Amino acid sequence: MPVHLFREIENLKKEILTLGAMAETAVRDATSAIENRDESLAQEVIRNDDRLDEMEVQIEENCLKTLALHQPVAIDLRFIVAVLKINNDLERVGDLAVNVAERAAFLATQPPVDISFDFQAMARQAQEMLKKSLDALVNLSAQQAREVLASDDKIDAMNRQMYLIVQDAIHAHPDQTGSLIHMLSASRHLERIADHATNIAEDVIYMIEGVIVRHKAEEYRAQMFR
Amino acid sequence: MPVHLFREIENLKKEILTLGAMAETAVRDATSAIENRDESLAQEVIRNDDRLDEMEVQIEENCLKTLALHQPVAIDLRFIVAVLKINNDLERVGDLAVNVAERAAFLATQPPVDISFDFQAMARQAQEMLKKSLDALVNLSAQQAREVLASDDKIDAMNRQMYLIVQDAIHAHPDQTGSLIHMLSASRHLERIADHATNIAEDVIYMIEGVIVRHKAEEYRAQMFR
Repeated sequence: MPVHLFREIENLKKEILTLGAMAETAVRDATSAIENRDESLAQEVIRNDDRLDEMEVQIEENCLKTLALHQPVAIDLRFIVAVLKINNDLERVGDLAVNVAERAAFLATQPPVDISFDFQAMARQAQEMLKKSLDALVNLSAQQAREVLASDDKIDAMNRQMYLIVQDAIHAHPDQTGSLIHMLSASRHLERIADHATNIAEDVIYMIEGVIVRHKAEEYRAQMFR
Repeated sequence: MPVHLFREIENLKKEILTLGAMAETAVRDATSAIENRDESLAQEVIRNDDRLDEMEVQIEENCLKTLALHQPVAIDLRFIVAVLKINNDLERVGDLAVNVAERAAFLATQPPVDISFDFQAMARQAQEMLKKSLDALVNLSAQQAREVLASDDKIDAMNRQMYLIVQDAIHAHPDQTGSLIHMLSASRHLERIADHATNIAEDVIYMIEGVIVRHKAEEYRAQMFR
């Protein structure tokens, strides 16, 4: 690999990991804003999203510049295309963290809702998947990426369970319908964050092995409540 | 432009429009399955999704091949990167249509729910945005693309209205909670389909004008209920 291209690729890797860390922080803060009914932390997540957006634009421009100037082929080309796609996913993760934060800001103004659902466990699961998908990218580890794919079913199941619990809770406490629907939305956002982690993991595998694995897992998933 | 590259780009354009037409059909059929309580049409949408997935994989491979073999620059490079991203969006639109179809299949087995919400109007709006974003791509029309961006607020407002209506309907008919939550989900899926149409329109503008417009509109949007 020519030394200039090598440098560009190292730079892209650094940038995408920075964006990844920003997205991870946003998800962590948004979910802890829900757990701790912390409106000011929720507002912070919402404010910080501009920075993620700027970073995403910068990374895309750098990818295009690298493609145009260095005309990479083979694994380098695949790496840059993977970065373009992962960049997109991370920006959406940031948007979803904002959506969770908006729910947190609303829920903090309402009386607490007591449901028998371990929101924290679901949040942790989504964060772990995101973290592992980015680790897989840093370490170029298809093994780690496959672990992410394997855990997607778990979070889907959690989301389906949340549906049933919220439905029952609405029956029992119709006065809390508003808050309960917001909780359900937060759970759906977490599930979508996990979906993006899955996309990232799939792109890492494709980059390493040249094998497109997406759509394979889908066949096995119960789809009813997504 | 070398004649081979010209041919590849024409071919990519044809393929992405084919995928776009497939996605449009999936959305149209899924929403009419909801409207007409048509379980077999819903199942057809679910079955057909494999074809969209295959098409997406094929388009991505062709993009990579074109990048590697022809090393395009400037507008050609931007076009191919836009196709890569639009390809992704269309595949997700297909997945969302499947999600809507799954709701339709469930709702068809339940007693009809009567709410004062014009689901058909929302479905039509989402379909129009998708169609117009693809027209903008075919015609390379930034004007048409901007019209898509302008209508995104409308569908967000519809989705917010749906929230409130469902919340009230649950209070009035707690026995229909299950169906109502499924209706709400279908509405959210439509809103996300419109989001993807917006992404496509933004990519078309970027391709034509080299201006990144995403994140601009976001600032103006009421975010509370997304």
